[in-house]
Amino acid sequence: MFLNQLIISAAKHKKIVLIGAGNVGTRLGIALKNAGHEILQVYSRTKKSASQLAKIIESAFTNDIEQLSALADIYIIAIKDDEIKNIAAKINIKEKIIVHTSGTLDMSVLKNTSKNIGVFYPLQTLTKNVDTDFKNIPICVEASNKASEKTLIELAKSISENTVPINSKKRKTIHLAAVFANNFSNHMYAIAEIILRKEKLPLTILNPLIEETAAKIKKGSPLKIQTGPAIRGDKKIINEHIDLLSDNKDIQKIYKLITKSIAENKIKE
Amino acid sequence: MFLNQLIISAAKHKKIVLIGAGNVGTRLGIALKNAGHEILQVYSRTKKSASQLAKIIESAFTNDIEQLSALADIYIIAIKDDEIKNIAAKINIKEKIIVHTSGTLDMSVLKNTSKNIGVFYPLQTLTKNVDTDFKNIPICVEASNKASEKTLIELAKSISENTVPINSKKRKTIHLAAVFANNFSNHMYAIAEIILRKEKLPLTILNPLIEETAAKIKKGSPLKIQTGPAIRGDKKIINEHIDLLSDNKDIQKIYKLITKSIAENKIKE
Repeated sequence: MFLNQLIISAAKHKKIVLIGAGNVGTRLGIALKNAGHEILQVYSRTKKSASQLAKIIESAFTNDIEQLSALADIYIIAIKDDEIKNIAAKINIKEKIIVHTSGTLDMSVLKNTSKNIGVFYPLQTLTKNVDTDFKNIPICVEASNKASEKTLIELAKSISENTVPINSKKRKTIHLAAVFANNFSNHMYAIAEIILRKEKLPLTILNPLIEETAAKIKKGSPLKIQTGPAIRGDKKIINEHIDLLSDNKDIQKIYKLITKSIAENKIKE
Repeated sequence: MFLNQLIISAAKHKKIVLIGAGNVGTRLGIALKNAGHEILQVYSRTKKSASQLAKIIESAFTNDIEQLSALADIYIIAIKDDEIKNIAAKINIKEKIIVHTSGTLDMSVLKNTSKNIGVFYPLQTLTKNVDTDFKNIPICVEASNKASEKTLIELAKSISENTVPINSKKRKTIHLAAVFANNFSNHMYAIAEIILRKEKLPLTILNPLIEETAAKIKKGSPLKIQTGPAIRGDKKIINEHIDLLSDNKDIQKIYKLITKSIAENKIKE
């Protein structure tokens, strides 16, 4: 029984090559290493970033794509979307599984690299130097065949409890929604900072409010829990805000457009 | 020494009348009661909501503004902005301190109610039925004279460690910034939900991302930590997103405008 478990466990531990040592490559590499997988090699365009990550996850490294190891089970491409096609054109690994980590690119961008292609998209904003617990991060998995999907789901489950098979169409929708929920809400914080700066006030004064706003979505649909002048239709305050923004026409335009959108999407109780 | 402390403590505990039993009135009433203050009376337009809150905080209640108790030290108006002027016209409490809790209204809206007027603005999104810890909530205090300011700051400090004297101009700026950081970022979550719904995907898949986005502002200015296609200038993905939104022109317009604003506010490293 114990031996059996060891064998199963050994089978689940994969040999991996990481192509890319940026934000996603770094965090993913560390998470996979910590889960017991062996990172055989790290590729990056620059020797410096390849060697930096290789040191952390105890792997070999190269900055020459021609020297990619042929010995791994799974190849993970974690580089910028618009560079994936170029890199993919230089890779041919026949039967091995190869995935990219992009939210928007079709799986088919990898079609000439191997028989077994897929996508391994962690739905989180990752930063090289910021420690990340993958346990709750949804990992969206797609594959060109059932056997590869099974292997990739096993790999995803070894680092996250939140693994979902997602096709390309759904994944693109998720990525677009994530742009609103992450990049655009962060830009709302940025505009708040720009507004406060004029009165020499620090953004930290809004920290408890920002935290509570994010926490509140667990209590109900954001459409239902909306508060503030736009949803109340409080024209006096809205006009006062528009006046206050008269020295920044771009932000004023955003204020008007979102206020209109909140009012139009109001859910009647 | 012990007796001294008791006397000081007794002096700090105020008799309070709450005018309004909505989201702010309820949460503030409970916080003040828990801090040891005595809520003499709750006023609300309807007997039902007045009595509901009165029961929780063990106070008297009325729905007749003519029957407002004259015995309190501090009167707190926590009703809708556009009703404050009307209510204020019916109140005359001479020397007592009276405040409103609005983020945008001038303190002067209270000028005929008393010699001692002020503002007591808790910078948080409050909901009647959601328990709130006031400890970290900034409370913005303003008063018409030093003695009232001292009393109000003491009152604020009895429930929050984050009390700030803020004049009306600064408070209005904070409120405008809060609309972006709270209402507008919540609307970004709402749009994400609308987008996901088309593919029958639940918003919960974005929960870890939304939490991390809010948590990240503690690590640096949102202008500096921005990620995504807009800040990278990734036109291919941006155009694909615009296409995906072609069945919802309003959301498409918001996507274009915020993408432009992110690009224009890019901070060069």
